[in-house]
Amino acid sequence: MSETFENVSVIKKANVYFGGQVTSRTVQFADGSKKTLGFMQAGDYEFGTEAPEVMEMLGGAMDVKLAGSEEWNTYVEGQSFKVEGNSKFSLKVPAGGADYCCTYLS
Amino acid sequence: MSETFENVSVIKKANVYFGGQVTSRTVQFADGSKKTLGFMQAGDYEFGTEAPEVMEMLGGAMDVKLAGSEEWNTYVEGQSFKVEGNSKFSLKVPAGGADYCCTYLS
Repeated sequence: MSETFENVSVIKKANVYFGGQVTSRTVQFADGSKKTLGFMQAGDYEFGTEAPEVMEMLGGAMDVKLAGSEEWNTYVEGQSFKVEGNSKFSLKVPAGGADYCCTYLS
Repeated sequence: MSETFENVSVIKKANVYFGGQVTSRTVQFADGSKKTLGFMQAGDYEFGTEAPEVMEMLGGAMDVKLAGSEEWNTYVEGQSFKVEGNSKFSLKVPAGGADYCCTYLS
């Protein structure tokens, strides 16, 4: 897992969801792709996807239930999970929050 | 105020303070300088400085009291304030949080 993104652009203004409980920064790459680096406060959330996404855990933890499944799986730093496009996923974030990187697959 | 930082490096892992109530990402520039893009949840905080800093408001609001002053000033999006080096500043962040960019002056 690279520690730094090099030669990128960063949109200064945060993406803010759920009243600030979830915030992220958009990182744009030379090849036109983008990722977001985000932080989630403790809480329960549901997100929708358009493109498929890969969520990479940078810190903390989150429990994840993908659409169509009744199973909750816990992910911690260094682990990743994929979410299909045009889908949803539910999250439970414990105290201390969760630091993540979201990659949008074209 | 430029909307994007171009040709920069970003450290993936968040800087996390106050149990996640304040988080930021470090952005490194070609000239060796750095800034952080951060978000503060509602709350009261005190930060110390080493180098002087300029805090630029990207969203939300914060009330600020600089060391040695009894005066609280409110800053909102588009406004900035400077904090001397080797100093402290107190902050009160209202509901909805505060989105900021911190520049470290050498």
